[in-house]
Order: sequence, then C-alpha cells, then structure tokens
Amino acid sequence: MPKLYIGNKNYSSWSMRPWVLLRQAGIAFDEVRVRFDSFEADSEFKRAIGPVSPTGKVPVLVDGDLVVWDTLAIAEYVAETHPDKKLWPASAQARARARSVCAEMHSGFTALRSNCPMNIEADLAATGALIWRDKAGVRADVQRLVDMWSALLAEHGGPLLFGEFTVADAYFAPVCMRLHSYGLPVPPQIAAYVQRVRALPGVKAWIDDALAEKDFLDFEEPYRLRHV
Amino acid sequence: MPKLYIGNKNYSSWSMRPWVLLRQAGIAFDEVRVRFDSFEADSEFKRAIGPVSPTGKVPVLVDGDLVVWDTLAIAEYVAETHPDKKLWPASAQARARARSVCAEMHSGFTALRSNCPMNIEADLAATGALIWRDKAGVRADVQRLVDMWSALLAEHGGPLLFGEFTVADAYFAPVCMRLHSYGLPVPPQIAAYVQRVRALPGVKAWIDDALAEKDFLDFEEPYRLRHV
Repeated sequence: MPKLYIGNKNYSSWSMRPWVLLRQAGIAFDEVRVRFDSFEADSEFKRAIGPVSPTGKVPVLVDGDLVVWDTLAIAEYVAETHPDKKLWPASAQARARARSVCAEMHSGFTALRSNCPMNIEADLAATGALIWRDKAGVRADVQRLVDMWSALLAEHGGPLLFGEFTVADAYFAPVCMRLHSYGLPVPPQIAAYVQRVRALPGVKAWIDDALAEKDFLDFEEPYRLRHV
Repeated sequence: MPKLYIGNKNYSSWSMRPWVLLRQAGIAFDEVRVRFDSFEADSEFKRAIGPVSPTGKVPVLVDGDLVVWDTLAIAEYVAETHPDKKLWPASAQARARARSVCAEMHSGFTALRSNCPMNIEADLAATGALIWRDKAGVRADVQRLVDMWSALLAEHGGPLLFGEFTVADAYFAPVCMRLHSYGLPVPPQIAAYVQRVRALPGVKAWIDDALAEKDFLDFEEPYRLRHV
C-alpha cells in the first residue's frame, strides 16, 4: 500500500492536497505524519524526511520503490494508476482547464499564501479584516479565485468546480480553509462552494484530525501567541 | 494550428519551456510574441495578454476555443494530444519521476530564480562569481540540480535526463541558460549536459532568436545599465 508522508494537519496546506485527494477518492494509503518541529537541517523533521524525499519536504508518496514528490506529480501519478476514479475531468478540454487552475495554484496566489497561512483550528477573522483592508495583493488573489470558481461552477453546474470531485477541488481545499479561518469576504455562491468543500467526507476527516492535533507551533503562528 | 503566446525570448524563462518543448518535438504552432514593456495594469503587455489569458501572464496556449495557461498544464496537454511524440518517459516510474522534477522546478529553486534571472545574451560571469560567494541559497539550489541531474543521467545513461528528450529537459532548459550566463560552477558531467541542452535544435533556435532580439529592459536587468 502506498505511504503518504505529511506534516502537521493544522498547518500543512501542501500535505492536505494529496491526502484529501486519496481519501475523498477512496484510495487506500498509509499515512506517515512527520511533525514540524522546525525546518532547520538538524531538526527532527529534516532527519525523518531527508532519507525519504530528495527535496526534504512533504508531501511525498512512496509506492514500493517509487518516490513521488510534489503535489502535482502525486496527483498525476494517482490519477494514472486509478483511472476508474476519474480524478481528472473526462473531456480533454475540461482536463486541460483543470490542470491549468491546479498549476496556477501551484506557483501562484503568493499574497494569499504568505499573508494567510493555513491554520484550520484558529479563528482569525479579526486579523483577516485587517489583512483585507491593507493588503491589495490578497484582495487581488481572492478576486481571481472568485472569478475562476464562479466561471467553472457556472459552466459545469456544480456542485464542485468541474461537476463531480476532481483534483482541482482537492487542490483548492486549503484555500477554502484560509477563506474560512480569516473570514475573507466572498460572494454567496463562493461561500457556498467553500462550505461544500468543507463538508466533503475527505476534507471533513482532515479538518477533524487538524482540530484534534493541538500542536501550537510559533513559526506557523504569525498572528497568535497561544492556542485560544 | 495552436497559438503559443510568449514574452521576450531573452528574458522570459517560463515562455521558453513550452516553446522549446513544441519546437524540439516538431509540433507545429504559431508563435505570438508579446513584448514586455512593463507588468503594470496599463502596460501594452497587459492590454495584449489580458483578453487572452485569465492570469494576465505568459505563456498561454490557445488551441481553437481552448485556453491552456501555465507551463505544466501546457506540457500535459501537448503530451496528451501528441502521444506519438513520447514527451513523457514511457515507464510509469520514470514518468512519475519526470513529473516530480518538473513540479519541483515549477514551485522551487527560488534563490536561483530570483538572484540569477534569465538573460541569455548577457555575460554575467563576474556577477555570478559574487552571487556564488555570497548567496548560500543559490549554492544550495545548484547543488540540488547537480544531485538530481547526476542521478538521472547515471540511471538512464543520458544523453538527456530520461534518455531521450522529454518535458523535463524543456523544463530545465532555462536553468541551463542561467548556469551558462552566470558561469556558476558545476561538475564536468553537468556542464556537459548543459552544453547538450544548449545544442538541441529546439533550444538553439530559441537562443538564436534571443540573441537577435536586442531589447534591453531595465526591470529585467538588475546587473547591467546597458547592452554591452
């Protein structure tokens, strides 16, 4: 059975993507959680993940002798090895579009990612209001998400971005977490999509684990001194 | 015929990847070059690309009604629509590895990318020597490239990363440009790979166009006041 190495569920947005993809698709895997103590060379984290991943990062999927790193490569590998799960849209056009939005997420939305790090268990609405007032880059990133998701939901009729669940929804699940935790304002149809993603069994399972984690890490907490 | 929108050939490393992929694979396309005048909202560049690309960036591939943005999605689309070109390695294991290194490039190597922006026609060896002395992040990025490429070349026997030409070589072609322009020190087997990539007809055609461009853009030139 493949092993998926992940970090802290409350904080690791990149770990969340393939975990949700596998879980929501009903693909069996062993989870190996490597706690974030720090990212220095001598950290427990780096000592644990270094022998597994050539980049020293999570997530990593290990399937027998094969090591697949980086979320996009994991998604492609899982989609190829489980064609019955239809993890990409069936039509070539929709599939190209789904890959475009995933790749855009993979290297983009830097203002949202840096200002609003994922923190599932925190209520950061007051912080989010200040960010919204002061950070034009965050507002631009959210506007792009609103435009993208609105177009896809309208075109495919929902409930998810390409109709049924695909890699794209797993890819944007951490963004849904951020919009929720920071209370960033979005139109009703987008808020409804965020709630539908949060309610997916594969996403809910991750959220439940994150809430149970109770591991407060200063270097992942720019906005809080302690768990409140 | 598909249209590939690109930026300045001397500077646009992201544009280079799909262009080299298509050209080297012998896939016909129309090139639409959109000059970088600036990246402000009122620039000629944004006015030209805005109606084409939902992200306002290059590269973008337009194939009939379909718009595919972002290099990774373009690579997957082209590989799917031209299976005869074998743009990904044939074995599932090598394919997963190739996608892993491309995805790593897509979101990583930030020290190399920010300190050594692509500038094909420039000789930046003196600048490169200072960067090499002072920037540990650049040295770490280059070491990771050396480790990755050495392992792949040894495993597949060369001449390219996965034996014959694949997406991975197109993906690292701009990195080969940077190693060359900045004269960053690499072991002989890596320098030889860089030279093999530079000599690929699809890469050489891009280099020749870049050399002919002669369009000096201050905001792409952190290390020069003028063309010398």
